[in-house]
Amino acid sequence: MTQRHFPGSKLATRSNDDDDDEDLFEYFYDEPGSLPGTLSIDEDACPSFIVLIDYNESHANRVTNLTADACTPYLTSDSVSWLDIQGLGSEDILLGLGRIVGLHPLLLEDVVNVPQRPKVEDYSDQLLIIAQMVMPKPTEDGFWIEQVSFVLGKSYLLTFQEEPERDCFEPVRARIRGHKGKIRQAGADYLAYTLLDAIIDGFFPVLEDYGERIEALEDEVILNPNHQTLEKIYQVRRELLALRRSIWPQRSAINALIRDGSNLISSDVRIYLRDCYDHTIQVLDMVETYRELASGLMDVYLSSVSNKMNEVMKVLTIMSTVFIPITFIAGVYGMNFQYMPELTWRWGYFVCWGVMIAIAASLCFFFWRRGWFEDSRFAKHD
Amino acid sequence: MTQRHFPGSKLATRSNDDDDDEDLFEYFYDEPGSLPGTLSIDEDACPSFIVLIDYNESHANRVTNLTADACTPYLTSDSVSWLDIQGLGSEDILLGLGRIVGLHPLLLEDVVNVPQRPKVEDYSDQLLIIAQMVMPKPTEDGFWIEQVSFVLGKSYLLTFQEEPERDCFEPVRARIRGHKGKIRQAGADYLAYTLLDAIIDGFFPVLEDYGERIEALEDEVILNPNHQTLEKIYQVRRELLALRRSIWPQRSAINALIRDGSNLISSDVRIYLRDCYDHTIQVLDMVETYRELASGLMDVYLSSVSNKMNEVMKVLTIMSTVFIPITFIAGVYGMNFQYMPELTWRWGYFVCWGVMIAIAASLCFFFWRRGWFEDSRFAKHD
Amino acid sequence: MTQRHFPGSKLATRSNDDDDDEDLFEYFYDEPGSLPGTLSIDEDACPSFIVLIDYNESHANRVTNLTADACTPYLTSDSVSWLDIQGLGSEDILLGLGRIVGLHPLLLEDVVNVPQRPKVEDYSDQLLIIAQMVMPKPTEDGFWIEQVSFVLGKSYLLTFQEEPERDCFEPVRARIRGHKGKIRQAGADYLAYTLLDAIIDGFFPVLEDYGERIEALEDEVILNPNHQTLEKIYQVRRELLALRRSIWPQRSAINALIRDGSNLISSDVRIYLRDCYDHTIQVLDMVETYRELASGLMDVYLSSVSNKMNEVMKVLTIMSTVFIPITFIAGVYGMNFQYMPELTWRWGYFVCWGVMIAIAASLCFFFWRRGWFEDSRFAKHD
Amino acid sequence: MTQRHFPGSKLATRSNDDDDDEDLFEYFYDEPGSLPGTLSIDEDACPSFIVLIDYNESHANRVTNLTADACTPYLTSDSVSWLDIQGLGSEDILLGLGRIVGLHPLLLEDVVNVPQRPKVEDYSDQLLIIAQMVMPKPTEDGFWIEQVSFVLGKSYLLTFQEEPERDCFEPVRARIRGHKGKIRQAGADYLAYTLLDAIIDGFFPVLEDYGERIEALEDEVILNPNHQTLEKIYQVRRELLALRRSIWPQRSAINALIRDGSNLISSDVRIYLRDCYDHTIQVLDMVETYRELASGLMDVYLSSVSNKMNEVMKVLTIMSTVFIPITFIAGVYGMNFQYMPELTWRWGYFVCWGVMIAIAASLCFFFWRRGWFEDSRFAKHD
Amino acid sequence: MTQRHFPGSKLATRSNDDDDDEDLFEYFYDEPGSLPGTLSIDEDACPSFIVLIDYNESHANRVTNLTADACTPYLTSDSVSWLDIQGLGSEDILLGLGRIVGLHPLLLEDVVNVPQRPKVEDYSDQLLIIAQMVMPKPTEDGFWIEQVSFVLGKSYLLTFQEEPERDCFEPVRARIRGHKGKIRQAGADYLAYTLLDAIIDGFFPVLEDYGERIEALEDEVILNPNHQTLEKIYQVRRELLALRRSIWPQRSAINALIRDGSNLISSDVRIYLRDCYDHTIQVLDMVETYRELASGLMDVYLSSVSNKMNEVMKVLTIMSTVFIPITFIAGVYGMNFQYMPELTWRWGYFVCWGVMIAIAASLCFFFWRRGWFEDSRFAKHD
Repeated sequence: MTQRHFPGSKLATRSNDDDDDEDLFEYFYDEPGSLPGTLSIDEDACPSFIVLIDYNESHANRVTNLTADACTPYLTSDSVSWLDIQGLGSEDILLGLGRIVGLHPLLLEDVVNVPQRPKVEDYSDQLLIIAQMVMPKPTEDGFWIEQVSFVLGKSYLLTFQEEPERDCFEPVRARIRGHKGKIRQAGADYLAYTLLDAIIDGFFPVLEDYGERIEALEDEVILNPNHQTLEKIYQVRRELLALRRSIWPQRSAINALIRDGSNLISSDVRIYLRDCYDHTIQVLDMVETYRELASGLMDVYLSSVSNKMNEVMKVLTIMSTVFIPITFIAGVYGMNFQYMPELTWRWGYFVCWGVMIAIAASLCFFFWRRGWFEDSRFAKHD
Repeated sequence: MTQRHFPGSKLATRSNDDDDDEDLFEYFYDEPGSLPGTLSIDEDACPSFIVLIDYNESHANRVTNLTADACTPYLTSDSVSWLDIQGLGSEDILLGLGRIVGLHPLLLEDVVNVPQRPKVEDYSDQLLIIAQMVMPKPTEDGFWIEQVSFVLGKSYLLTFQEEPERDCFEPVRARIRGHKGKIRQAGADYLAYTLLDAIIDGFFPVLEDYGERIEALEDEVILNPNHQTLEKIYQVRRELLALRRSIWPQRSAINALIRDGSNLISSDVRIYLRDCYDHTIQVLDMVETYRELASGLMDVYLSSVSNKMNEVMKVLTIMSTVFIPITFIAGVYGMNFQYMPELTWRWGYFVCWGVMIAIAASLCFFFWRRGWFEDSRFAKHD
Repeated sequence: MTQRHFPGSKLATRSNDDDDDEDLFEYFYDEPGSLPGTLSIDEDACPSFIVLIDYNESHANRVTNLTADACTPYLTSDSVSWLDIQGLGSEDILLGLGRIVGLHPLLLEDVVNVPQRPKVEDYSDQLLIIAQMVMPKPTEDGFWIEQVSFVLGKSYLLTFQEEPERDCFEPVRARIRGHKGKIRQAGADYLAYTLLDAIIDGFFPVLEDYGERIEALEDEVILNPNHQTLEKIYQVRRELLALRRSIWPQRSAINALIRDGSNLISSDVRIYLRDCYDHTIQVLDMVETYRELASGLMDVYLSSVSNKMNEVMKVLTIMSTVFIPITFIAGVYGMNFQYMPELTWRWGYFVCWGVMIAIAASLCFFFWRRGWFEDSRFAKHD
Repeated sequence: MTQRHFPGSKLATRSNDDDDDEDLFEYFYDEPGSLPGTLSIDEDACPSFIVLIDYNESHANRVTNLTADACTPYLTSDSVSWLDIQGLGSEDILLGLGRIVGLHPLLLEDVVNVPQRPKVEDYSDQLLIIAQMVMPKPTEDGFWIEQVSFVLGKSYLLTFQEEPERDCFEPVRARIRGHKGKIRQAGADYLAYTLLDAIIDGFFPVLEDYGERIEALEDEVILNPNHQTLEKIYQVRRELLALRRSIWPQRSAINALIRDGSNLISSDVRIYLRDCYDHTIQVLDMVETYRELASGLMDVYLSSVSNKMNEVMKVLTIMSTVFIPITFIAGVYGMNFQYMPELTWRWGYFVCWGVMIAIAASLCFFFWRRGWFEDSRFAKHD
Repeated sequence: MTQRHFPGSKLATRSNDDDDDEDLFEYFYDEPGSLPGTLSIDEDACPSFIVLIDYNESHANRVTNLTADACTPYLTSDSVSWLDIQGLGSEDILLGLGRIVGLHPLLLEDVVNVPQRPKVEDYSDQLLIIAQMVMPKPTEDGFWIEQVSFVLGKSYLLTFQEEPERDCFEPVRARIRGHKGKIRQAGADYLAYTLLDAIIDGFFPVLEDYGERIEALEDEVILNPNHQTLEKIYQVRRELLALRRSIWPQRSAINALIRDGSNLISSDVRIYLRDCYDHTIQVLDMVETYRELASGLMDVYLSSVSNKMNEVMKVLTIMSTVFIPITFIAGVYGMNFQYMPELTWRWGYFVCWGVMIAIAASLCFFFWRRGWFEDSRFAKHD
């Protein structure tokens, strides 16, 4: 199971690799009627790789490439053990861990069968937290989205990531290594809070990018609305919808942690979670604001297109209306009647020109009075 | 009473068989003022056919083609009895079962007079669960929708389906036969959960189909918006509305089962139902997301049509505006005045061509400056 | 006070009799500052006419044309007395009943001063239920709407209808006469439920009619959208708004009856009311669904009109663009310059035709490449 | 402070006196940072004028032109004293009353600094009720809106109106004078209810006017949509928004009175307030219904304009398309090539006419087949 | 960190200094994974400057330019100490204050890392109130927005402002100096209320400005809708969205203060806060009303543009349709057929004119009958 990424719509990319797009807005689902608790290992999923960080105030060890069974001593020790499982492709490791840590089959199913909706579930001696992590793409617009599952026990924390090596937890690892802040004194619940907070704070840079894209679109929609503008607005709305869909349930989940979280979370950490909850609200608030702006832009776009068509119509109407009557006059004197007195007049031709110029001028004056000329200031933008 | 199926709107199908469409968005209703508890057997309804599966840990028997009375010994035994009534056309069988199992007249009415709104009702020693099952059509877009009613007793489960042979319960039957999972050890409540879960999971393949249709429409609406696109978007919105209308009350029903379900449901099964509830939320979430996407597509479609008209107008305006003045000039020198000095000039004709070309070129330059030519990149798609 | 009826908007009918339309969406109101409890007898109201049905398990009598005072013995007897007051025009009868039954002045005001918003009010020994009954019009689209007020006492039920002889209670009367079901054994509360249920079930045939009208409009809006389509959509939306406005407060009222109804309603009847509440939810659900469909139709209509204009524009543009350049060429060779070499060429005329045909053909090819011809498939519908 | 009145928007009136419009949708606000409890006497405010009506079952006196101090004996007596303060322009009278009656500075501020949002505030021995009274304008569309503040004490009621002589309380005064109903037996709380009820009932005639205006607009929007229609719809929406803004908080206020009103309101009056609350709900319901109708009209208007443009385009396209090819043919035979065989044919001219008529006829037939002629039935309305 | 200001969108200003715009709709966020409680001093932030006002009933001292440590004696004294920290640029002063007053690291983070969402947080012996202050720009449309944080202790109040010298607290300072009102008798909670009230009242002048801008736009949208109107409406909607986003959480915050505020707030001040809450509701109410008006204006604008295009189309259609047939006739008699009988008629030329005039007149009559001339009254506005 590879990470989902945005933009995934073919609208913007028009690429051929729509493999990743399949699960843009979808959730994992079991084959209807299948056994509850079945693990569905995606064949594209990265092989699982366990990174263990065991620490307390006096030490901090990092062990990688462990088997499931080798984790047992760490899990039972008093020091905090963070088992970071990167990749969900190895059924034996996942089942092994499930057996050792004593994970409920439904819990393991939620962890492995990604993506799930963010939520918190209390299995009395363990707390399952499903979260979604977003990361801006380095080279283009859009973002990756990836499920991170937390299993919080008394002195251990298991995190399950879909992809190895790409996460926003590096600063936390550095803090553990460098003994910065109170993280080494605190328990596994504080570690879970720190990682959750890093995930939520990871939404801000992504959102900042949307703020800039919307500002660029505001210019474009007024100065030079074209068909690509429409695609871009739709794309922004689509991706904000995906972000909202991701952050909305996390808000409820964190609120549930604060309000009725199990005794695995100390009251001290609950204060910190309140801060994390505030940030979630802020993310949600920004997403909603951007959504409203993007939807307002759609209105402006429609009006801009109407305005532009108005301009085109005016040019056509002015040109046609000015020339139609005088072309008619030219046609009249092109007739071949034998008796047409004007044709023989000495100044007939010049009088005819005079009349035509007078008609054209008065029509122009009429349009100028209606403000059809000045109003075209819009065209100056182009 | 035959299954309702989508698309049922004539918009998409334009077929003549609108018999099935009649009850697209409707509910069954009694003749106003009729006796409560009246069974209305639809004359098109399939005859009822009872399939009994009786099992416990040691045995699992399947008996078909039973009469109502022949069910009595199974219902009173300790083993779990699943009476699957397929087809609602035989009043005698339905009333017979009602008498034997002791069903409240209102309960039987809800079961037979389909479709009803999904709900849960507690008749102290029986629990009525009305659900709606959807199945994707094999050969075309759209889905069938069919009411499944559960009557859960202490050691028995009655399920009433509208149509025989077409359901999503086959894997469950296989698990009972094959003694897979814990289903043979568990009670009738676990069986009810398993079937409900199969119904909810059955929404996902249907929704996946809509995800693909929306992605196809996203391409079409940008690259080649035509009138059929509009019909398709409307059709998708209409069918998603029907899905939402079906899943929304199921969410409340399952929530009610978890929260204040009777003592017929063990606390163990309640944990599994929580998982089923999560899936319902996910279905609802996907339906809402697709609805938002489809409604955004409508906006994009409208803008695309406006853009296309803009292009058409531009072609007309450029052609007209460039030729109208020079056609006028040609008309002038087609006049038959006796005294028109230019006509006698040696180079008059060529000067005239020069002037006409100059006018046309400067008008083209004017439109090029306004960006009317480059902007037509949209047309390249066609 | 005559029954309100739909369509009442002049949009659809364009009739001159807008007398009835006046109170389409309005409520009765007192002259500001008037005495509370004032009865406002509408001068158009039908004279009141009392139909009494007195029954218990052993007998069922029907007495008509009673005076108010003649009702007293029936009201005090143990048997259930149903006083059906048809027409609200006779102040003496209404006040007489008020005095005999002991109705609060505010209660009587709500009953007489129609229309009121549906509601339930508990006057300790009496329960006031205000409901609204709808009936499809037999000969045209639309429906009548009429207030029915229930006053439920210990052994009597008073119902007040605006119009005599037109109601949906006939099947109930037949059941009392024919001793069908349990109605003769049950009390006045069961009678009230039965009548309420008949009223709610009466919404379904009206709604079915809207389902059909919306399906017809779906065809029309795609195949042949014209200005009348717009009127019809607006009309359907308007009437659904009126239906929603009528059913919405009835939902709350019936819910209040179930939840905190007085001791005048037995727990047995409360179970039946739950069924009635389900039907109300179903009605509301259908109304909302139809409203969404109708509002989606409006979007489709707008797009259809845009599409149609697009077609018209294309025809104009193709015709103009193809002929404008070649008409110009014809104009050029109509000029009267003395020295125009082409005019004297032997094959000049035929070369000229060749050039004109070549220009026209290449323009047609250009439009064909842009798909302007194929796209007109929409026009085939007309 | 003069009364606010609608329509206040310049859209409809285009008058120059926008002095009154300033506070259309605004609330009074203190200079930021000013002392709480500061009275801001508007210099345009009418001078205050006290009308006292003192009554019990045996007497009813009316005293006008009192000073604040002269009120003291009435306030302390057992009989009900209604002090109606008309005009908020005399600071000395207002402060004097505040001192005598013992009004909290914040209370007095809310009363004087109009307009405030309707609300109820409980100052233990006094109840402040802020309401808004509307009155239809006698000569034109629109209404006046004016704040009325009630201060309810044990045996007295103070009412503060912005303007003298224009209120809807006259019938109440008549009832006190004429000893009609139970008002003379009841206390100050009943008086407060009666006045509140008169205010709420005063919304109905205003709303009835909007019902009629919307019906007129329904006709206009279909039969003859022009630019003024748009202004009128906008104006109706704007004024309904103001009405909703006024009635919405009154609903909450009256609900608060019923639910947690202080002991200054007897349980008897609470029953009457329930009736008043019903009327408020009805007003709100009508406002919302009219708002939905007005917003639906906007859609119909837009479609009507589109339809009309469609008609205009069709006329242009038919005329252009029919004449463009035949004008081209006329142009061809106007060319001056020396060798044009057709020109010398005997029947060339008549054959040419025949060809032109055939082309024009077949184009007309083509348009007739597309239904472009019949569809113009809309134009017949004009 | 400099103050955010509106309009910040480039739509309206088109200036190059988009430095300030960056944080229009954004919140401050930590580098993902950073230490909780980190202060992020913006390098553009003004240096912090402490203004202390210490007062009780008998004295009121103002001390400026204090160091953090010099504040200690004031904080511990019984008199009320208001420490107004202006500018958030000096980390040492902020940390020093944090140490002396005993501020939680998360509290200090919220104060310094601006902007945060308005909220109230209870740190048992301190109350953190985050508010946002708006100020109208003196020379142009739009407003500044700035975070003000309150830390309320037993006898002290700390306020943190982003910018020195620009606030709306001057009248409060004057009241302390001048011993006006009860402020000198009251405690720090009353001071906090007074300042909060000043902030809320500061929204009204800003909103009044929007009321005027909307009224001006109402005129413009009807009389002379051009492309700038669209930009202005979008701009107003955008800024109102920002105002709503600022006032909405303040409403919840003040409500929380009243309902479950700590014991740092006396019940007396709670009554005043209720008044402040009312004002917040009024602000919110006005913002919502203006938003509805602005969004209605968008509809009117779209219709106006459609109407205008309709007018343009009519002019084109009338001109084209009147001249096309008669130009055709002129063309016919310009043909050079040898045998064209009409050409030789004596009155041929004049009959031809007569026919052309008759055709043109009857077409004009046709358009006049359709009302195409009268309907152009809209054009008179221009």
